[in-house]
Amino acid sequence: TINADRLAASIHELGQFGLNEGGGLDRTTFTEPELKARDWLKEQLSKLNVDVYTDEAANIWGKRVGKKRKSIVCGSHIDTVPNGGKFDGALGVLIGLEMLRTLEENGIETEHDVELVSFSAEEPNPFGLSTFGSRAISGKLTAQQIKDVKNAEGIRVTDALAKAGGIPEQFDHCVRKEDELLAYLEVHIEQGKRLVDAHVPLGVVTGITGIYREELTIKGVPNHAGTTVMTDRSDALVAAAELIVTVKNVCTDFPKAELVGTVGQVRVLPNATNIIPGEVVLAVEIRGEKTEDVNKVQQELQEKKSYVETTYGVHIETKVMLNQAPVEMSEYIMKTMERQADIAGFSTMRLGSMAGHDAAHMASLTPSGMIFVPSVDGKSHCPEEESSMNDIEKAANVCLHTLLEIDQE
Amino acid sequence: TINADRLAASIHELGQFGLNEGGGLDRTTFTEPELKARDWLKEQLSKLNVDVYTDEAANIWGKRVGKKRKSIVCGSHIDTVPNGGKFDGALGVLIGLEMLRTLEENGIETEHDVELVSFSAEEPNPFGLSTFGSRAISGKLTAQQIKDVKNAEGIRVTDALAKAGGIPEQFDHCVRKEDELLAYLEVHIEQGKRLVDAHVPLGVVTGITGIYREELTIKGVPNHAGTTVMTDRSDALVAAAELIVTVKNVCTDFPKAELVGTVGQVRVLPNATNIIPGEVVLAVEIRGEKTEDVNKVQQELQEKKSYVETTYGVHIETKVMLNQAPVEMSEYIMKTMERQADIAGFSTMRLGSMAGHDAAHMASLTPSGMIFVPSVDGKSHCPEEESSMNDIEKAANVCLHTLLEIDQE
Ligand SMILES: NC(=O)NCCC(=O)O
Ligand SMILES: NC(=O)NCCC(=O)O
Repeated sequence: TINADRLAASIHELGQFGLNEGGGLDRTTFTEPELKARDWLKEQLSKLNVDVYTDEAANIWGKRVGKKRKSIVCGSHIDTVPNGGKFDGALGVLIGLEMLRTLEENGIETEHDVELVSFSAEEPNPFGLSTFGSRAISGKLTAQQIKDVKNAEGIRVTDALAKAGGIPEQFDHCVRKEDELLAYLEVHIEQGKRLVDAHVPLGVVTGITGIYREELTIKGVPNHAGTTVMTDRSDALVAAAELIVTVKNVCTDFPKAELVGTVGQVRVLPNATNIIPGEVVLAVEIRGEKTEDVNKVQQELQEKKSYVETTYGVHIETKVMLNQAPVEMSEYIMKTMERQADIAGFSTMRLGSMAGHDAAHMASLTPSGMIFVPSVDGKSHCPEEESSMNDIEKAANVCLHTLLEIDQE
Repeated sequence: TINADRLAASIHELGQFGLNEGGGLDRTTFTEPELKARDWLKEQLSKLNVDVYTDEAANIWGKRVGKKRKSIVCGSHIDTVPNGGKFDGALGVLIGLEMLRTLEENGIETEHDVELVSFSAEEPNPFGLSTFGSRAISGKLTAQQIKDVKNAEGIRVTDALAKAGGIPEQFDHCVRKEDELLAYLEVHIEQGKRLVDAHVPLGVVTGITGIYREELTIKGVPNHAGTTVMTDRSDALVAAAELIVTVKNVCTDFPKAELVGTVGQVRVLPNATNIIPGEVVLAVEIRGEKTEDVNKVQQELQEKKSYVETTYGVHIETKVMLNQAPVEMSEYIMKTMERQADIAGFSTMRLGSMAGHDAAHMASLTPSGMIFVPSVDGKSHCPEEESSMNDIEKAANVCLHTLLEIDQE
């Protein structure tokens, strides 16, 4: 079993990098605090009997060599959203580190290599490239695709990558081969309230949610908010409001709780108190475990769009911004996790991820599985993000024993 | 009767000041183009036998002296909104100018003084002070109130005023006395479609609309748009959308067409595609001819706010930004206008202003009346703003003969 005190100490230590006055972490990828956190991680790994290296995509690896030379990979990411918490991502990396420490301490010789990975840039970031590292090693993000990408200040992602130890010129060399991998395991906080509400300490993730995002540009007629009677208006904002309510209603009435829809971003033109809005741009996001469920919501929204166009005399343009298919986790790994939890006497619950994770990309290379740890109050991406050490310890031990069982394959 | 060709030429000439590439006018108050337009107007007045002067609030006056030394004032404003049209405001000033020319040309000696006024800063402007000139001369805007006002660039309104010929140090001296005034007449474009739809060339304005504006701050809980199931959300934007639709529905269903409600301004926080909006700020505007009507809508909105607070678990703060009471126009002047139109054989229609006007403030000093000229397609505050010379000529003649009839009092 892992050493919970040592793990707690590591969580605390890593949680100092990027710590702001409000207790949140500002550790966006490739920023100074994140580079320092990377150095800290490499230093920890260097104290163990593992090969430490940084690949072309600046992913940090620590490989503990086994007998058969296939690899079981464990990990997550250490970058955070602005003003984020100290568990999202970091927990999975630190549990991986703790597992390596435990294996070494107990002199356990594994059949296969055990690799820790800390992926670059998992979170949404100023370069617009989230799950950067896992997409790169699974061949979904190429040197060609990143070569001209810049952030708002005009800094090239390739320059930022080089500073973090990546090699932009040989970026595509980081791709891992399927036949050298046996499995990918990731522990992550749930970031929601389902486990807390069900009083279950361990979540076995069935799949990584599909994410569909569209940008709607609603064009009405800007006009004088006084002299234009109600029946003469083509108010783009009223039309937008109808769609916002529709997204909420359709998703709330959907028979599955793991289907959600959100309008998070709105731009109104000209945005003046006494001018009827002439144009509104909305970002609609729909997430679900099944493509057909996401399509269903999309279609109901489409019908409402047509209705709104006719009713309000507006024109709606739809631009698909993201259409990430749902990814299933390995049934074999799920069963192994459940068996190990059962042996240890911990109850588990199967649940969909609802958030995007590096595991979605790893699943295209090798059977993958995720364990979710309950999030206190369901809070995440904020300073209040918290999980109990009690739950964390359970997850780490189940992950370790899942790894050891897979290693016996 | 007035000289329509000369009036048309003046509209064209004044329409050159601030003309942009798209055919709109950028003649915001106290800007270079507006100062040039002021010079042009003073030059035109100086060619007539009138006293030309600029008062402490930089209102431009041209007084044609009569026998009894009371004044009938005619006018409007020559500033425009950004990318506005050449009729809103300018038409009323140019018809006043044309009336002075016609009186002089025909050697008409009036009983009372006839004064043309071009009010400063009627339109919403960067200093946040609309109907600046008419509020000043009716004692509703004081030196005290303007002394610290600056625009976004930090320029003081007092400095801008001085450049336009005003005297900030003696600002309060511009106030006019009630007993020296007999009436105020203003011709303005309708800025809506009611006259066009009714095929009536002349609108007799019954009152200046009341304008009520409130800012709503809707506070929900920002959260992860993936991992927060629909039933766990306090989405400030969904709550806002319900209110936007309510404003529209209540006003559309209202038994009077001259009651309108608009949400023109929206700010969403944090405004990210994958975060549930935690805060939304809305500007709600309600306009009507009767305070009780505006109150009725306000109250229905209030009920919906309570409902939304309970249903969505949000908190709503309301801040009243403007509460301008409706103002009635003089029944005596309305009747005189209608009589003069009837004599000339033009049909008229009574209607509420729905927009704010300088006449609202003049009405507290002296009996006031407005004539509306039809707006082609109801368009205003845009380059397409247009009225036919045929309609303009009718309005100018009815205004002139209304003035002459009042002068006989
Ligand atoms: N796990 C996580 O918060 N990922 C960020 C991407 C998203 O799911 O919106
Ligand atoms: N006449 C006019 O457009 N006034 C501007 C103020 C308003 O009514 O919104």
